Amino acid sequence: MSYPVGTQGVVVQNIERADQAIIDGLAECGVATVHEAQGRKGLLADYMRPIFPGARLAASAVTISAPPCDNWMIHVAIEQLQAGDILVLAPTSPSNAGYFGDLLATSAKHRGCKGLIIDAGVRDVRDLTEMDFPVWSKAVFAQGTIKETLGSVNVPVVCADELVNPGDIIVADDDGVCVVRREEAAEVLEKSRAREANEAEKRARFEAGELGLDIYNMRGRLAEKGLKYV
Amino acid sequence: MSYPVGTQGVVVQNIERADQAIIDGLAECGVATVHEAQGRKGLLADYMRPIFPGARLAASAVTISAPPCDNWMIHVAIEQLQAGDILVLAPTSPSNAGYFGDLLATSAKHRGCKGLIIDAGVRDVRDLTEMDFPVWSKAVFAQGTIKETLGSVNVPVVCADELVNPGDIIVADDDGVCVVRREEAAEVLEKSRAREANEAEKRARFEAGELGLDIYNMRGRLAEKGLKYV
Amino acid sequence: MSYPVGTQGVVVQNIERADQAIIDGLAECGVATVHEAQGRKGLLADYMRPIFPGARLAASAVTISAPPCDNWMIHVAIEQLQAGDILVLAPTSPSNAGYFGDLLATSAKHRGCKGLIIDAGVRDVRDLTEMDFPVWSKAVFAQGTIKETLGSVNVPVVCADELVNPGDIIVADDDGVCVVRREEAAEVLEKSRAREANEAEKRARFEAGELGLDIYNMRGRLAEKGLKYV
Amino acid sequence: MSYPVGTQGVVVQNIERADQAIIDGLAECGVATVHEAQGRKGLLADYMRPIFPGARLAASAVTISAPPCDNWMIHVAIEQLQAGDILVLAPTSPSNAGYFGDLLATSAKHRGCKGLIIDAGVRDVRDLTEMDFPVWSKAVFAQGTIKETLGSVNVPVVCADELVNPGDIIVADDDGVCVVRREEAAEVLEKSRAREANEAEKRARFEAGELGLDIYNMRGRLAEKGLKYV
Amino acid sequence: MSYPVGTQGVVVQNIERADQAIIDGLAECGVATVHEAQGRKGLLADYMRPIFPGARLAASAVTISAPPCDNWMIHVAIEQLQAGDILVLAPTSPSNAGYFGDLLATSAKHRGCKGLIIDAGVRDVRDLTEMDFPVWSKAVFAQGTIKETLGSVNVPVVCADELVNPGDIIVADDDGVCVVRREEAAEVLEKSRAREANEAEKRARFEAGELGLDIYNMRGRLAEKGLKYV
Amino acid sequence: MSYPVGTQGVVVQNIERADQAIIDGLAECGVATVHEAQGRKGLLADYMRPIFPGARLAASAVTISAPPCDNWMIHVAIEQLQAGDILVLAPTSPSNAGYFGDLLATSAKHRGCKGLIIDAGVRDVRDLTEMDFPVWSKAVFAQGTIKETLGSVNVPVVCADELVNPGDIIVADDDGVCVVRREEAAEVLEKSRAREANEAEKRARFEAGELGLDIYNMRGRLAEKGLKYV
Repeated sequence: MSYPVGTQGVVVQNIERADQAIIDGLAECGVATVHEAQGRKGLLADYMRPIFPGARLAASAVTISAPPCDNWMIHVAIEQLQAGDILVLAPTSPSNAGYFGDLLATSAKHRGCKGLIIDAGVRDVRDLTEMDFPVWSKAVFAQGTIKETLGSVNVPVVCADELVNPGDIIVADDDGVCVVRREEAAEVLEKSRAREANEAEKRARFEAGELGLDIYNMRGRLAEKGLKYV
Repeated sequence: MSYPVGTQGVVVQNIERADQAIIDGLAECGVATVHEAQGRKGLLADYMRPIFPGARLAASAVTISAPPCDNWMIHVAIEQLQAGDILVLAPTSPSNAGYFGDLLATSAKHRGCKGLIIDAGVRDVRDLTEMDFPVWSKAVFAQGTIKETLGSVNVPVVCADELVNPGDIIVADDDGVCVVRREEAAEVLEKSRAREANEAEKRARFEAGELGLDIYNMRGRLAEKGLKYV
Repeated sequence: MSYPVGTQGVVVQNIERADQAIIDGLAECGVATVHEAQGRKGLLADYMRPIFPGARLAASAVTISAPPCDNWMIHVAIEQLQAGDILVLAPTSPSNAGYFGDLLATSAKHRGCKGLIIDAGVRDVRDLTEMDFPVWSKAVFAQGTIKETLGSVNVPVVCADELVNPGDIIVADDDGVCVVRREEAAEVLEKSRAREANEAEKRARFEAGELGLDIYNMRGRLAEKGLKYV
Repeated sequence: MSYPVGTQGVVVQNIERADQAIIDGLAECGVATVHEAQGRKGLLADYMRPIFPGARLAASAVTISAPPCDNWMIHVAIEQLQAGDILVLAPTSPSNAGYFGDLLATSAKHRGCKGLIIDAGVRDVRDLTEMDFPVWSKAVFAQGTIKETLGSVNVPVVCADELVNPGDIIVADDDGVCVVRREEAAEVLEKSRAREANEAEKRARFEAGELGLDIYNMRGRLAEKGLKYV
Repeated sequence: MSYPVGTQGVVVQNIERADQAIIDGLAECGVATVHEAQGRKGLLADYMRPIFPGARLAASAVTISAPPCDNWMIHVAIEQLQAGDILVLAPTSPSNAGYFGDLLATSAKHRGCKGLIIDAGVRDVRDLTEMDFPVWSKAVFAQGTIKETLGSVNVPVVCADELVNPGDIIVADDDGVCVVRREEAAEVLEKSRAREANEAEKRARFEAGELGLDIYNMRGRLAEKGLKYV
Repeated sequence: MSYPVGTQGVVVQNIERADQAIIDGLAECGVATVHEAQGRKGLLADYMRPIFPGARLAASAVTISAPPCDNWMIHVAIEQLQAGDILVLAPTSPSNAGYFGDLLATSAKHRGCKGLIIDAGVRDVRDLTEMDFPVWSKAVFAQGTIKETLGSVNVPVVCADELVNPGDIIVADDDGVCVVRREEAAEVLEKSRAREANEAEKRARFEAGELGLDIYNMRGRLAEKGLKYV
């Protein structure tokens, strides 16, 4: 059973996750490749930046719909985590408050959580960096939050311009964050690998000094469109 | 049959719409009331502003997922319009280009379209104002678009932070834009009317000079929380 | 007795206000003149825009320090209003939520309140326009707020980049919002009027076709700095 | 003789202007049409908004390169104005200060100036509106400026993302601002009129209920690209 | 004697500073803890970012109110520095100009200055990083400034949304910047340490795998509010 | 022969470049010094940030005017690169799409390209960092682009607020990006070196503890302007 975007006050306990081998494969491919392979969709907004460089992962989304400036639901969500999951938090109204810090990260990490995607603020970033707990966020901001209003866990959320369903796969690296529908993950991985193979071949030709104009046969079409060399 | 967010190259021709009486009722209630009545959800981002003041409507969404800077799909969508519909366009990547102007408005209006919600730019706003064709947009910008890449019509889209399904009801006025799920529309209208009745009663008391502190019995709880008058 | 910026949980009931004749005089002078007359200080950020054009006023500030997305303190503040006051709300953390709408305006107006300055969002702007209740805000947004956490009334607040003390005079018009310290109000009015008299004389000369270069004797200093006419 | 972008301390007194009939023709066509007719170039950034709706003009640019928060050069520029010109001010570093108000407008208007394009702030907008002196600006802000540092008049400037040369034609309306190179003005006008004629014919067909899909023969190409109707 | 926000042309030479042991204690606690301990107040805006990661300090504020794009007062302020102080610069109108670079840092460092908080731009960031001179700023921008207009030193300023008095304690780390009132510093330190002790105990329980739901006894209240597990 | 800003469909194959010794000299001086030495002009907008810290270079600009979300022209431009050049891409309408990634960098690097300046997005930043290929961009975003519409290569472009001509020298480091006109490069280098010599002397005095107030003889002028020490 699924719940519509915007549902509040519900915790869905059993969500389906993609096959771990598929998730691991997507992590190897990275955000840019996966985004292209699935037809140039699924990118979260470009303001979602990692708190430290170099992190690179794929994981199953445990989603959180949280009221603005209220982080109560994160505690609820942590209980729902399985090893290999990632938390994805979307506030119900824009907020840059610091919903998440080192204590919550300690708790999440104990359950095998791989990181956090949050369309709001995060704090204790020095501690999180030392813990090697990656976060992609809209802001770094110490502003405290309250625990007064219910949200939901594992319902679909709109996070940084994209719909994320519980169990969808999040791919994240220094380029940002991409979401892959669970149902499409196997196919997207296959296409991503094909793309990588193709890129490896292209890379070799570029390294040898061939031009994209020739590798991709662009000269004719450019001339046709009227490009003039002067 | 429904398609996931991000689908490209599909035009869904038959969508369900809510009952017209319900839609008309929601228009009377307005954005703020409907947003509250459905549990404080459904608001599009606050950057969605009307091109002229005073417009106020509710209508069934005919959705458009369009590539950045490419307005081809609007022509496709117009054929799918029924009287009383509103176009809702979300680009697949952020864009402020001017996807829509007076010619498209002329065509849409001929089919009974009530307006446009666009998470991008609009142009010819003087003509649109004279035509009384309301638009809520992210930008006013004359930048031209191309017609090269497919998008989709009547698939779910994420528009200005909110998911909009084809056939959902859009409520829009000077406060901005709110989406109501088609399945929840009747219940939301009922709650909106109850809220309006309650507000009318409250308004009378406020006009008579009563304070919110007394009308809502707030003094005790404020004291309990520790508010000090000095 | 005064309270520092950031105090929460306090309502100061007796604040000093400037002389009404001075306040009325500042209203006539307008934002740009008053800002200049007091030494180019006191302007609130340029994102503070009126919800409708043409409003022009000066009034004594009744200040509200409110938690993000929580409008409880507005009810408390309204009881503290005297005729001729204006509400000035600063959230303790950035928020665009719609703290204020037509019911609160009805209540505030009944007590003689002249308007609202809010470094956050406002809603029901069509109703507020019909009521001729002016608001200068950071956003128009219908997002609802809660009533859970205390703030303060009539303590100093930082609103849109400026410190506002309770009882300071707010001058607002289509150019934006300016704050005048209560203690300096008489002197600022005097300088504003002198400035206006001077401007009237200058305006006559400009209307007669004289150039600023001559009226202000700029040619010599420009030449000295090295300006070249070619 | 021409000066490079960034030159400071120079006033060019004799600039060439386009033929008045051409300028008037461009005004009739408006921003969106002219932008398209000249190959989708020349638009200033979308944050350049008019201070009141309905203004519509074309005029020869008298350009001002001004230091941040320093409006001295406007006085210098006004002396260079001829009837039918428009002032175009670009600060040498980003600024939202209020460089221009009603006194300068009085002076400029006396010389036949048609308005102001300013990539910074403007003030006294109520007075300017009453004077019917149109301004397109980045901000409305009363912040005062100084008169300490030289800039230049009638050198090329980069204003809101676009290069403007002295004597270029500025076209501005509710859609924003577009610049036309003086040398290309006649050709752009011709193309704009052709475009208008074509649009008039198209508008008639749209009004008669024909679809863009048919008017522009799009169905075949859409099918070829793989669009599926379901 | 103290001066109001907005005063110009004054240098206050003798300011009170907090006890060094208190300042050092606050540095150990860090921004997030101090912000919470003092009741969730005092945070500067989230756009204030460090020019390099890892810096962590507390220091007494020597404040600078500077005109836009004019860094003259920094030279004046440096003479007022004592070892252990930090410069806090707020422009009187928004500016991203590069007020501060390696020469000023060399001078400030010689007097024992621990860093700079600036609601504007900074430059020479590579040199500043090599010097290990930390800066939290709104922008990194090389734009030069002038020395023409007076500001003030050691008067209260509004910097990045917060009031800072001379002698207040600035706490800054990778999470941003927080200000503590000098008069409240001892109490805030005490509360910060209590908070840290409490967090250490909680951290141990989180590390042992206990959930926040149990540690904070949240389950009952969540059920009471109506949270449904499905 | 040169082409105006906004020209599309042209590739200029022979551009003049500055003397390599001059370019190398400018690289040593860095952005802040060069910007000052040429009269405080030439800075690109402060949002242009390096994808990794520490890069520092000067190079001849090979310019690209590209349609929004269309990277076709980069392939064309790479063929025009000579060793020591840098690519400078300006979209004809705002875009944050990821125009450039590791394959294009491989190709550009093979031709001796030193980096990329792009007023849009870049992707594969982890790979680019490993390749030590520096990029200054407006955004990091994986969004894919198309290859449908012509732009131009080696025509003047407006990039991040500044005009860049082909063959102009780009200086870039952690402070941002500055453009130097090719014709002025020798003179700017001379002035930059003079400035550096002067700064070295000043730095020694600052290190010895002298104050700017004395080094620059500011005390008299400050007193004259009315600065009061209290």
